[in-house]
Amino acid sequence: MIFASDNWAGAHRSIAERLLQESAGFAAAYGTSDLDRRVEARFSEIFEREVSVFFVATGTAANSLSLASVQRPGGITFCHSEAHVIADECGAPDFFSQARLSPVDGELGKIDPAKLSKAIAGFPENAVHHGRATAVTITQATEIGTVYALDEIDAISAICKERKLPLHMDGARFANALVALDASPAEMTWKRGVDILSFGGTKNGCWCAEAIVVFNPDKAKEMSFIRKRAAQLFSKSRFIAAQFDAYLDNGLWMELARHANGMADRLRSGIGASNSARLAWSTTSNEVFAIIRKSAGKTAEDKGAKFYEWPIPSATPDLVGPDEILIRLVTSFATEEKDVDGFLSCLAS
Amino acid sequence: MIFASDNWAGAHRSIAERLLQESAGFAAAYGTSDLDRRVEARFSEIFEREVSVFFVATGTAANSLSLASVQRPGGITFCHSEAHVIADECGAPDFFSQARLSPVDGELGKIDPAKLSKAIAGFPENAVHHGRATAVTITQATEIGTVYALDEIDAISAICKERKLPLHMDGARFANALVALDASPAEMTWKRGVDILSFGGTKNGCWCAEAIVVFNPDKAKEMSFIRKRAAQLFSKSRFIAAQFDAYLDNGLWMELARHANGMADRLRSGIGASNSARLAWSTTSNEVFAIIRKSAGKTAEDKGAKFYEWPIPSATPDLVGPDEILIRLVTSFATEEKDVDGFLSCLAS
Amino acid sequence: MIFASDNWAGAHRSIAERLLQESAGFAAAYGTSDLDRRVEARFSEIFEREVSVFFVATGTAANSLSLASVQRPGGITFCHSEAHVIADECGAPDFFSQARLSPVDGELGKIDPAKLSKAIAGFPENAVHHGRATAVTITQATEIGTVYALDEIDAISAICKERKLPLHMDGARFANALVALDASPAEMTWKRGVDILSFGGTKNGCWCAEAIVVFNPDKAKEMSFIRKRAAQLFSKSRFIAAQFDAYLDNGLWMELARHANGMADRLRSGIGASNSARLAWSTTSNEVFAIIRKSAGKTAEDKGAKFYEWPIPSATPDLVGPDEILIRLVTSFATEEKDVDGFLSCLAS
Amino acid sequence: MIFASDNWAGAHRSIAERLLQESAGFAAAYGTSDLDRRVEARFSEIFEREVSVFFVATGTAANSLSLASVQRPGGITFCHSEAHVIADECGAPDFFSQARLSPVDGELGKIDPAKLSKAIAGFPENAVHHGRATAVTITQATEIGTVYALDEIDAISAICKERKLPLHMDGARFANALVALDASPAEMTWKRGVDILSFGGTKNGCWCAEAIVVFNPDKAKEMSFIRKRAAQLFSKSRFIAAQFDAYLDNGLWMELARHANGMADRLRSGIGASNSARLAWSTTSNEVFAIIRKSAGKTAEDKGAKFYEWPIPSATPDLVGPDEILIRLVTSFATEEKDVDGFLSCLAS
Repeated sequence: MIFASDNWAGAHRSIAERLLQESAGFAAAYGTSDLDRRVEARFSEIFEREVSVFFVATGTAANSLSLASVQRPGGITFCHSEAHVIADECGAPDFFSQARLSPVDGELGKIDPAKLSKAIAGFPENAVHHGRATAVTITQATEIGTVYALDEIDAISAICKERKLPLHMDGARFANALVALDASPAEMTWKRGVDILSFGGTKNGCWCAEAIVVFNPDKAKEMSFIRKRAAQLFSKSRFIAAQFDAYLDNGLWMELARHANGMADRLRSGIGASNSARLAWSTTSNEVFAIIRKSAGKTAEDKGAKFYEWPIPSATPDLVGPDEILIRLVTSFATEEKDVDGFLSCLAS
Repeated sequence: MIFASDNWAGAHRSIAERLLQESAGFAAAYGTSDLDRRVEARFSEIFEREVSVFFVATGTAANSLSLASVQRPGGITFCHSEAHVIADECGAPDFFSQARLSPVDGELGKIDPAKLSKAIAGFPENAVHHGRATAVTITQATEIGTVYALDEIDAISAICKERKLPLHMDGARFANALVALDASPAEMTWKRGVDILSFGGTKNGCWCAEAIVVFNPDKAKEMSFIRKRAAQLFSKSRFIAAQFDAYLDNGLWMELARHANGMADRLRSGIGASNSARLAWSTTSNEVFAIIRKSAGKTAEDKGAKFYEWPIPSATPDLVGPDEILIRLVTSFATEEKDVDGFLSCLAS
Repeated sequence: MIFASDNWAGAHRSIAERLLQESAGFAAAYGTSDLDRRVEARFSEIFEREVSVFFVATGTAANSLSLASVQRPGGITFCHSEAHVIADECGAPDFFSQARLSPVDGELGKIDPAKLSKAIAGFPENAVHHGRATAVTITQATEIGTVYALDEIDAISAICKERKLPLHMDGARFANALVALDASPAEMTWKRGVDILSFGGTKNGCWCAEAIVVFNPDKAKEMSFIRKRAAQLFSKSRFIAAQFDAYLDNGLWMELARHANGMADRLRSGIGASNSARLAWSTTSNEVFAIIRKSAGKTAEDKGAKFYEWPIPSATPDLVGPDEILIRLVTSFATEEKDVDGFLSCLAS
Repeated sequence: MIFASDNWAGAHRSIAERLLQESAGFAAAYGTSDLDRRVEARFSEIFEREVSVFFVATGTAANSLSLASVQRPGGITFCHSEAHVIADECGAPDFFSQARLSPVDGELGKIDPAKLSKAIAGFPENAVHHGRATAVTITQATEIGTVYALDEIDAISAICKERKLPLHMDGARFANALVALDASPAEMTWKRGVDILSFGGTKNGCWCAEAIVVFNPDKAKEMSFIRKRAAQLFSKSRFIAAQFDAYLDNGLWMELARHANGMADRLRSGIGASNSARLAWSTTSNEVFAIIRKSAGKTAEDKGAKFYEWPIPSATPDLVGPDEILIRLVTSFATEEKDVDGFLSCLAS
């Protein structure tokens, strides 16, 4: 009953075995092997256009270097006020991009387009004292389990285009969002105006597989230097490539995400039907936020369940009753039905 | 016949299988799992004192964050003029440490203590215009296959202590150096006055396993923030831990280095005995530098051998004859006797 | 009728003449002249304790280097959401300190202590993902003309002490605040727990005279390197010293601030008594925020008045009527009664 | 008898009086005043083409921001191994540009073109590990008093053009070099292929007047943000403009440099004719390097002379006899004949 985070899971067996298989033999280092090239080409297929791909070690690296690649002095990157980049990356995006992250509010973890417009308008061109708007980043799926609908991405993107701001998408849970929307990778990204993507594999069944995908390869010219200077170029890069190779084979990545989301659906159904717990807000990815009785939480923990208590959002101070807590439950490719059902039975008890 | 670099090898089977085994099950993320803790403790055993250990993604990261952790504004880090940190890391150590790398010459890839003393003396304390000496870094084994003897490390260390400069060791080929010296990890590091070590596993049989080892844990307090801000904290950190676990089990790491050095010895013997090739300089680790006939190089390449032609050192412009080339040959845990013998026979042909 | 900003004024005649006088003769460069030393010593007298003083070129430099001097990796500096450091310095404090500025709200331009406590509480010690609270900065007088009372500084300071966070004061209008409070420099700073001060002279009658004052000289050891590396060490530093020398002579600085505040009082009285304009909020320094009729603003501008229209604070969207505008009026040492009266008569017309 | 440095002088009376005159009245801040605009336009006249001009506080700032403006990740800036940027600016150029300064040798303080070519050749395009050549900077006049002839600048410039590297000139003693070459500002800069210039006024009679001159204004678009973020935008910018205004009036700047160089000529003649001292090497600007008897140095100091003993260049260890010292003598606009003659008489004694 591990719902603490999807990164508490290990690696999917197919991916782990693909790594074992890759362990033999020799290959050129630093991302120049045949396997590296072949897997990079697969990204172009998946996204239905030529893209540039850069493997890095962590999701924080993917976000930080993506944002670094589009920055200019005095720059400001707009993100949701609860986004991972601003809340959970220890200032790495600020450090690498030398830009300030400026938080924008919005319901359900999504940037409110009107608020974004207003925030950007506070930075007229050439107003040197204020600094300048230089990028926007959205998280898909969001930190609180919701997913931008395609037209919601369009709304953000339109604002970016008007001011010629590059749009980055943090896709640490990219596959889960695709499943939730039943959209194609292209439809959810460059067809909506996304310029650069953090494509995450780690949370969805890899050991360590993160990639920066740049949709306009002309704009990726600096990235190989940015990555190397950031100490993110693996010598045995093919071990990342091998993971992605297995991940993308036969749609495994979508299958794993579908499983994770399905387990979350099972949680959502169970909690929705419960008398003793309720959903804090509606989510569609592999994260579920629930309000449960403290005693039920204690029971679950005693039985080995792992999950995080979540801070009450300041906008809804009365969300949670006196004997209740707000918790986050994250499912993954490795979550089993019995874990879900076991947890649900703890709530009922 | 792959002698291009030790990072062209894959992973040793024991390590790859340990990874496969670790793929199942759940564990706490971000370096807090039991396995992470246990492997960190193994480092203290190996070094015969309590140490702080930080896993990172690349050797460049280990060097860069090590140097960052001991820097102060206006700082200067002294390194050998051919060191990896200054020659092959795209400015990453400068970027993370915000210090200048200042090259010091010395024969056979090793910093000359007299030249180091003189270089440091150019930076008296509080001479704000010049900047200030803040660190020294040595590479063990060096970039050109040599190894600092223990008393050579003592000589560097004594200079550092006099000016209270922290001494860092880039141990990308740490195990190969240990084997070459027949020394213990403690003897080659903190007992000699080394303060911080980049402990490399990748070149010696891991997929991706690098660690920063801080010998005085009191001085490691900032490192967890430095690492996270550098986007180098793995979520599934235990996969690094698992590699190190297998690497350290039953002295596997030493065995692999012994094998690599032994294969280099075989190369050295063969070349030393050859009429048609000669050693460019004496080495004792897993790197061999040889002067061979151009035609022999061509023959070897035609038969599938991989190696790099090396630039002629500016101090010895006449090292190489008109029909000759200088080449670097690197052996690894995966090099086989038949590769060595096959290559030697190409030279003779 | 120049009320655009106090930095539109020139230099007070005594200061300008002191500069002329200093132009002859030779003296040691880079802040080592007798005059530099003597003026630095005057700061210790004025603050009634030994302090370390560092002259820099701009108020932005004073703030940025102050904050840089107390930073650690992953750090977060808390400031008011409208503070100059976050709103008007083009990211310089972020750039030099490599810390994120995190905005905290509060009425009348002052940080709300309860909100500060809550904001800091979001960063428990060693929570590496979030980053960590490392500094607090307040502006005295604030960007909107108000002044922290001494006990209001105490309240902020107490929060800082509890978490051992250094407290910085941006004193670009330090003298105006002193006059408003009728407090001594010591009372308004280190006796309240302020650790480091940006002491501004430029807005109050100097050409270019800004100083960083560190109240605990032990903590100033890195500053000379931080300053030089930031390209802020003047070769002919004594010209900054000379300005401060004249500025501090016979209490000139307090006299100039008293004059500026007095002119603001005259504006406040006039506007308070007016039928056609009103004060937007109460201020006590040399800044006045008024709501006037658009037509009156037009009249004043036609007669040569200079002032800035100010954005309506989001907390009070109904502050200004349909035919009105919110304006900022700043007085200085050079403002004359006839300017004030001339402006007031425009409002009435 | 102050020969310590030209920045020990004060300000020329015309410049100091122009500052006094500017002290009255009001003007728009942050470089937008009529005077700022007018003085910027004078630079275009002086350089015989449209240029972009940015005032900054120090020569170190001019160099650092110039180099920052042309950098890309992993960049390397080539400079002479004794250049001010690498030897005397506490790492500021490295800090602001995030590029490494790579020293190139050359006789008489000037980069040797052949060595520069070879150094750059070590960084082939796209060799991500090494980093990449991104800029070249030369100092005119050099740190040791020599001056690049126009065709020597051409030789450096040709190398830059071949690799499309921007060429920066550190003109802290720009006027002294112009006088030495009897060249026009245009002839010594953009007509030779210089792209960006640090134009120094401080050492030649101003209090504090340094400017970055960008010869292709299209390439200056980022500079206003770079400058503001570096805390180098003066609020009362017109006080820099006023200094330059007086400096450039009626050729004052050339007259002052001619005087300084003339006083150096007088020193050179006297030392050349002396039996007890000799020139260490030939210089043509306002710096003179002489070998004198230790006793003569002592005598001169006892009589109040100020000068710096200079380190013996490592290329010429036998330059100085056992009872001799190498000294640097710098003249300025404020040096008088009697100072020179007084010093010469000390040498003879």
